[in-house]
Amino acid sequence: MITLDVALGERSYPIYIGADLLGQAEIVRRHLAGREVMVVSNDIVAPLYLDTVMAAFEGLRAEAVILPDGEEYKTLAQLNTVFTALLEKRCSRQVTVVALGGGVIGDMAGFAAACYQRGVPFIQIPTTLLAQVDSSVGGKTGVNHPLGKNMIGAFYQPRCVIADTAVLDTLEPRQLSAGIAEVIKYGLIRDGELLAWLEENMEALVARDRDALSHAIEHSCRNKAEVVAADELEHCQRALLNLGHTFGHAIETGMGYGRWLHGEAVAAGMVMAADLSARLGWLSGDDVARVEKLLSRAKLPTRGPALGPARMKELMAVDKKVQDGCIRLVLLRALGEAVVTDQFDPALLDQTLAQCQV
Amino acid sequence: MITLDVALGERSYPIYIGADLLGQAEIVRRHLAGREVMVVSNDIVAPLYLDTVMAAFEGLRAEAVILPDGEEYKTLAQLNTVFTALLEKRCSRQVTVVALGGGVIGDMAGFAAACYQRGVPFIQIPTTLLAQVDSSVGGKTGVNHPLGKNMIGAFYQPRCVIADTAVLDTLEPRQLSAGIAEVIKYGLIRDGELLAWLEENMEALVARDRDALSHAIEHSCRNKAEVVAADELEHCQRALLNLGHTFGHAIETGMGYGRWLHGEAVAAGMVMAADLSARLGWLSGDDVARVEKLLSRAKLPTRGPALGPARMKELMAVDKKVQDGCIRLVLLRALGEAVVTDQFDPALLDQTLAQCQV
Repeated sequence: MITLDVALGERSYPIYIGADLLGQAEIVRRHLAGREVMVVSNDIVAPLYLDTVMAAFEGLRAEAVILPDGEEYKTLAQLNTVFTALLEKRCSRQVTVVALGGGVIGDMAGFAAACYQRGVPFIQIPTTLLAQVDSSVGGKTGVNHPLGKNMIGAFYQPRCVIADTAVLDTLEPRQLSAGIAEVIKYGLIRDGELLAWLEENMEALVARDRDALSHAIEHSCRNKAEVVAADELEHCQRALLNLGHTFGHAIETGMGYGRWLHGEAVAAGMVMAADLSARLGWLSGDDVARVEKLLSRAKLPTRGPALGPARMKELMAVDKKVQDGCIRLVLLRALGEAVVTDQFDPALLDQTLAQCQV
Repeated sequence: MITLDVALGERSYPIYIGADLLGQAEIVRRHLAGREVMVVSNDIVAPLYLDTVMAAFEGLRAEAVILPDGEEYKTLAQLNTVFTALLEKRCSRQVTVVALGGGVIGDMAGFAAACYQRGVPFIQIPTTLLAQVDSSVGGKTGVNHPLGKNMIGAFYQPRCVIADTAVLDTLEPRQLSAGIAEVIKYGLIRDGELLAWLEENMEALVARDRDALSHAIEHSCRNKAEVVAADELEHCQRALLNLGHTFGHAIETGMGYGRWLHGEAVAAGMVMAADLSARLGWLSGDDVARVEKLLSRAKLPTRGPALGPARMKELMAVDKKVQDGCIRLVLLRALGEAVVTDQFDPALLDQTLAQCQV
């Protein structure tokens, strides 16, 4: 087992990475606040792993609430069912909320923990690669609003994250690829070494080789933990983690939540960011082709849906990265080096949006 | 104008107290984050004061969202209308949310500010005495759930609080009394001097004498600011501010939100706390009579509704102060000195509950 520490002062916490961690009760139990536990999971993950997790809480007052699976259920209404479960079970401020699922479950359970009685302890057990390498680390929690993704939420840190590589065996191939998109992102924004490793090991990763998965999760979490520790409230560095995300959120919103997976939308968004970076003279055509090839090998889309540049820009305008009406984007100065900028000719953005759709 | 500072490190903020502060645009403008403002108010307060407040934001992009008045609307659903307004107006992370109203508006606007895009700046303009002396100070925000009051929320500090005594001229007498209940509370839990002042000046306060109001607000906020600064996350001292509140919340929930005003329920709850304290031998019968008399002079109830001890205890059991099934209460060691305890004979609580209802 690998243990990484996310250094956030008194809110610091460990990330445990390895195979078959769910069955090791002592890992999760040492992070409980009291004798009350509420596991939040969904109807896909619960039948597979809930029994194993509940067994770790034997002798405690442990309950579970099961939500429907899918980004379209990441709503205030579903969040309220978690509050209702906590209240019906008379959970006190000493309850520990445990997220068992992908990014949606992690975001919702974390936000519920942040808000229940104004904050109770929280543990992340991410069961998708995407959640393990990205959404479970960094403390972003929240739900969607019909007018924008992730618009309602809180910064709230877990007590620990348990990333069990064995649970990835049951992951849909499309979900695996969506997770790899975020691994590629870390390579592109700040880790040329990881990028080179991915170019050598992509087929092993797609085949779920355990060592390859562990390496990818460890280095992704390390990158994210470094960025988050440096900039917990996302004033500056943390924004770089959003490479491809302003484009990606627009794709997700424009197509309706759940049609495109988050990682798929980010993959297409990263190609858009690379394309625009090339138009600004920062990347070569070869660099862009290298990005597209790596994403293709990960079985990810490299083009967005045919929403049209005008609609895409409208959707991008509600993104959180917009300040005073200017669209700020994460672009690439080079492969392995990202910057945030609103200094680009809008006509180039139009060209990119027209070029990078099917 | 009096300026009090709430000392919370980098989250410190001033409370301004005085007459006709709403018309002084420079006070509120110096605390704005950017050029976007969203005022959250209700349909009782907005017709009276919204124009004055909006005039202070001339030249900026200022919008308003008006909620229905009343504790029964302090819900996740109403909170969502604030998010919808923020998103429809394309408000960015630089928006400042301004609460213009009583405690319900302050709690909801503050929680909306805490959650919108994971946190935007927030200013409190409380328009009831209760909100000026209590709920606007300390950073507690949130909404109710059908199964419990204030069960969903966040600790979130405003950039400033503007307590304008002139707006109290339009307050309903019942609302004024509800605010005085909390002023009396500060006297009972930690400020014998304020308690003595109240016994000398209660009629002036009820008659809305400006000097008396300023004195009451200043000393209430000073007490609350001291407690909050010492214990921002309510692990210990802050709990003392809940004198009468566990009883009071049970009354409010049992009668249905909005039937009893919060301050009225707290008044009856403080008599219960005093009565139980006397049964424990901490207060004399005269002390209890002194509490009841002061509340009566403030035109507040001194008895709870006839819910019965069993139902009251059931309602009290969902309160946030409950740990591992024990009901913890704020009681009085003496007038001017409160303690938190779960060390009492449950039979005495039954006697109190039977005694202190109509």
